[in-house]
Amino acid sequence: MKRVHNFAAGPAALPLEVLLKAQAELPDFNGIGMSVMEISHRSKDFKEVAEGAESLLRDLMGIPDNYRVLFLQGGASLQFDMIPMNLMSRTKRAYYINSGNFAKKAAKEARLFGEVIEPASSEDCNYSHLPLISDDMFSEDADYLHFTYNNTIYGTEFRGIPVKTDLPVVSDMTSCILSEPVDVSGYGLIYAGAQKNIAPAGLTVVIVRDDLIGLNPSLPSMLDYAVHAKNDSMYNTPTTFAIYMAKLVFEWLKEQGGVEGIHRINLEKADMLYSYIDSSSLFHGIVDNKADRSIMSVTFTTGDKDLDERFSKEAEENGLTNLKGHRIAGGMRASIYNAVTLEDCKALVDFMKEFERKN
Amino acid sequence: MKRVHNFAAGPAALPLEVLLKAQAELPDFNGIGMSVMEISHRSKDFKEVAEGAESLLRDLMGIPDNYRVLFLQGGASLQFDMIPMNLMSRTKRAYYINSGNFAKKAAKEARLFGEVIEPASSEDCNYSHLPLISDDMFSEDADYLHFTYNNTIYGTEFRGIPVKTDLPVVSDMTSCILSEPVDVSGYGLIYAGAQKNIAPAGLTVVIVRDDLIGLNPSLPSMLDYAVHAKNDSMYNTPTTFAIYMAKLVFEWLKEQGGVEGIHRINLEKADMLYSYIDSSSLFHGIVDNKADRSIMSVTFTTGDKDLDERFSKEAEENGLTNLKGHRIAGGMRASIYNAVTLEDCKALVDFMKEFERKN
Repeated sequence: MKRVHNFAAGPAALPLEVLLKAQAELPDFNGIGMSVMEISHRSKDFKEVAEGAESLLRDLMGIPDNYRVLFLQGGASLQFDMIPMNLMSRTKRAYYINSGNFAKKAAKEARLFGEVIEPASSEDCNYSHLPLISDDMFSEDADYLHFTYNNTIYGTEFRGIPVKTDLPVVSDMTSCILSEPVDVSGYGLIYAGAQKNIAPAGLTVVIVRDDLIGLNPSLPSMLDYAVHAKNDSMYNTPTTFAIYMAKLVFEWLKEQGGVEGIHRINLEKADMLYSYIDSSSLFHGIVDNKADRSIMSVTFTTGDKDLDERFSKEAEENGLTNLKGHRIAGGMRASIYNAVTLEDCKALVDFMKEFERKN
Repeated sequence: MKRVHNFAAGPAALPLEVLLKAQAELPDFNGIGMSVMEISHRSKDFKEVAEGAESLLRDLMGIPDNYRVLFLQGGASLQFDMIPMNLMSRTKRAYYINSGNFAKKAAKEARLFGEVIEPASSEDCNYSHLPLISDDMFSEDADYLHFTYNNTIYGTEFRGIPVKTDLPVVSDMTSCILSEPVDVSGYGLIYAGAQKNIAPAGLTVVIVRDDLIGLNPSLPSMLDYAVHAKNDSMYNTPTTFAIYMAKLVFEWLKEQGGVEGIHRINLEKADMLYSYIDSSSLFHGIVDNKADRSIMSVTFTTGDKDLDERFSKEAEENGLTNLKGHRIAGGMRASIYNAVTLEDCKALVDFMKEFERKN
């Protein structure tokens, strides 16, 4: 079995221990003589999987009892629609902070359902830092405030909720969920596509406060949080294999010392990379405000397009894959999600040093 | 490795050959040093998977060039919404034949978006046969006609489009797709959740004629066929692992002689079960019109609730699993999808004979 250092932005690396466990029990789960993919979502065996996954996630994130955990489909992109459909109920108005490509996409969809106020944006500088935010930007009444916690394409990341507000706060945590401690009780709704830090693509996790469920009647069933909450995410067949994989990842996370434990490792990984980048005379970071740097998405460049191209290509040939930056941002991006190890990051720094020596 | 005879209604049995292939390459797909779950949906390696899956499906079903194949998420249940959202455009009216629980659910959702005409129903006899249908029931102009091809809970199945009509015909083929030849060119849209005859749960296949795409502007992006068609089903991250599994299943189907080959086996399996049921003095079929019997979902009962209960329980203990009927229909149900083998059906008949001898 060959394994490379995988810095993919998503779908992304999964812990090897998890892949090997899934592999071992693929045709015969728990000794029942069937794959976990071949059993009813309503079976006793699968219910244990789904309930186990939810219970582990609640424990890992410290999710209070007045929040529901929903295992849905359609990715963050479907949440861009479901959030305004479900939450724009009273004022039909919401704040969307424009900190990146996905933040902008979320706002664009929300405009189909109500008024979107953009209090702050860093689009004019190609999102190279987080927008400047002050509390007085949120003086109008609204149904909620939306922000994208980690901006995976540009490599910026908020440090918690960027404003003091009584509005329900909604956050897209697709590319940082479970990478650092988060006080869930400060949020109205947290959502994340699974394919970066949780499981294979196809699963979406929504953590939503009770009082934000069921505000809009007569929604299409599949787009109504109330329907999914009432049916424990089994209104229809959920994506069972991805939920099973999520459970394995959550178990693995517990073994890493939970979110606190993995956060320490994540800080060490990010620090190793940024320290080298800051000391390098060939590479420099793309984010122009160091305080805004993401610990999950490390973007950098040589400043020379051809050299960047050559770096990604040679890295690939040396078993360091998926380092090419997003076409919008250019340069390089190392996505160092939870499953990317210290050793992977060390190998990358070693390769960067060698590349710098030769160029 | 233990394996049982699995008659689950969905998520359902997958071909053992497919499971073993997936198992072998789980941590290292194609020698690239990463799992197929760990690579970008836009990578060269995954594009080959997705394009391969589509090309195989086109070949297996004989899908004409003027149809698009979409790999979506959300199951048939999300299609219950997307179909009227996308197709109710001109008359804002559609026919829904009421032949079972899912047919009824589809109609209920469609009522959120326009007028639903129910030309025929067999609900009053608990769906124990297909509704009687004649062409004159469809005299009003409408945007489309919807029917559920195989009614998995009750065990009835249409034999093609049940009416001569110029309206676009939309069919839910979740529990029978790829089990028998279908003339796709007679349909406007065919859809199927993958978890019965295609792949693990989470993938939805939509086959839609070009002229039915893009009829309604300003739909939410994720609910708009035009957006998915334009982006080759990669507007957002698709459920990559399920698409990979679908490709393996399609390859396996080709080895079985394609849809024609598997259809011959399916007829043999169904015939074996129905022949025994009709000859038995203990068991009888639940469908009261033999011509309406499904070749995928074989429902039967002893007529005695306690004895039915005991049958399912003892079968389970003897390695014949998931034979308990749906709570709505009662009795027993053997779902004999493509991956259920002749040997599985033979084992079931043998067990039924033994159970009859003893009771």
